[in-house]
Amino acid sequence: MNIILFEKEEVKQKRVILADHRAKHIVKVLHSEVGDSVRVGVIEGDIGIGKIKRIQKKFPFVVELIVEFTDKTVSPPAIDLLLALPRPIMLKRILSQVTTLGVGRIFIINACRVEKSFWEAGILRRVEYRPHLIQGLEQAVDTHLPEVHIYRHFRPFIEDELPRIVQNYTHQLLAHPQGRQTLTASMGGRKGRILYAIGPEGGWVDFELDKFEEVGMSSFSIGARILKVDTATVAIHARIMQELE
Amino acid sequence: MNIILFEKEEVKQKRVILADHRAKHIVKVLHSEVGDSVRVGVIEGDIGIGKIKRIQKKFPFVVELIVEFTDKTVSPPAIDLLLALPRPIMLKRILSQVTTLGVGRIFIINACRVEKSFWEAGILRRVEYRPHLIQGLEQAVDTHLPEVHIYRHFRPFIEDELPRIVQNYTHQLLAHPQGRQTLTASMGGRKGRILYAIGPEGGWVDFELDKFEEVGMSSFSIGARILKVDTATVAIHARIMQELE
Repeated sequence: MNIILFEKEEVKQKRVILADHRAKHIVKVLHSEVGDSVRVGVIEGDIGIGKIKRIQKKFPFVVELIVEFTDKTVSPPAIDLLLALPRPIMLKRILSQVTTLGVGRIFIINACRVEKSFWEAGILRRVEYRPHLIQGLEQAVDTHLPEVHIYRHFRPFIEDELPRIVQNYTHQLLAHPQGRQTLTASMGGRKGRILYAIGPEGGWVDFELDKFEEVGMSSFSIGARILKVDTATVAIHARIMQELE
Repeated sequence: MNIILFEKEEVKQKRVILADHRAKHIVKVLHSEVGDSVRVGVIEGDIGIGKIKRIQKKFPFVVELIVEFTDKTVSPPAIDLLLALPRPIMLKRILSQVTTLGVGRIFIINACRVEKSFWEAGILRRVEYRPHLIQGLEQAVDTHLPEVHIYRHFRPFIEDELPRIVQNYTHQLLAHPQGRQTLTASMGGRKGRILYAIGPEGGWVDFELDKFEEVGMSSFSIGARILKVDTATVAIHARIMQELE
């Protein structure tokens, strides 16, 4: 946790009272004292400094802060992720990792090789996935919460939604081990908003690949080595960032 | 597991008998039958095909294969990692992830901000870390086991060992949030064997940065966002691969 984040409603007349894992972090990890300052931010808002006015160092931990917001955070890179639903434990990790790397929107979709049971996972509820996004922001020192859009049915998504969605991007890229070209060639030196798609373990099936191609998503490969979905997502996100550097 | 790997000693006159997690994988995940073929390889050796001669589908699982080795695997990318010892659970994940991405040597070293207790972890014993490397190879379909070198004391490492080690590289790169230049600029278009260093949570201290600089390692930054060590390792490894593409 490299910044203490609050919901907007938690700030009342420049005062915030923490009594959860954030208070514990200030006591146990930062070892802060009354009068010390910590970096703070409001989710979807500005960042600044919180001065510790009161601290209860024994369980239950409580910290009272007087906060001053002074700066905006830099926008995350212009990269969005389209992800075939992975197993829940992997989704949690991916959500916080891509949020840390910086992402605007995350589209979670179905695919032939997505196990049906994954759709029953609690993590697909906003109240459960949002903390993983916030963890990612706390790590990155950012306040821009990514948008998450979930589409449970492949066909309506790819036929009715995706054609509209792709119009927001200069690059629509589909990671695929047998992709036609390298990422460098796919990006072709142009810069702009980028959407990249990561398939399920086992990959997209031919029907899905054809459908993506119809919508104008071009497949690329980063080589013959087969990566797990979480490694692939971080690696490809990072490669796109490198290409944009 | 995208390839079934054996130790050289397990292959006896083209025959291999499996009775562990690999047999379970063939039964439960691949759902193979007698007569089916699976992709196989020898650690540090060639890859080929294993034909199933006998299969015991109930616990305890047993699979007998007749193997034929036909191809060499492609060498991993010319990238080596110098890593300040992270917490054990993170080290496990990093070892298998960088092995999947492809790495030649992994140097694990001490640093001021490495917690002392991490050095007591069982994962530092070869018998414990080797399976995580093999998992990475099974994922990537590779047989080249990375070399792992562990240095418990920072000063003798940086003064006596590193000056000799860096001579094997055209690029010696130190990831650091306040690094002097971008990765692109650090690599300067030249290609060759690359060593990159990743610090502990909390970063390198000034003394360590000075020591690395004396040895000729140049610091680079991938931006202001602060990444966890495992995310940073995969992201920087992938960015270097992108730069080499």
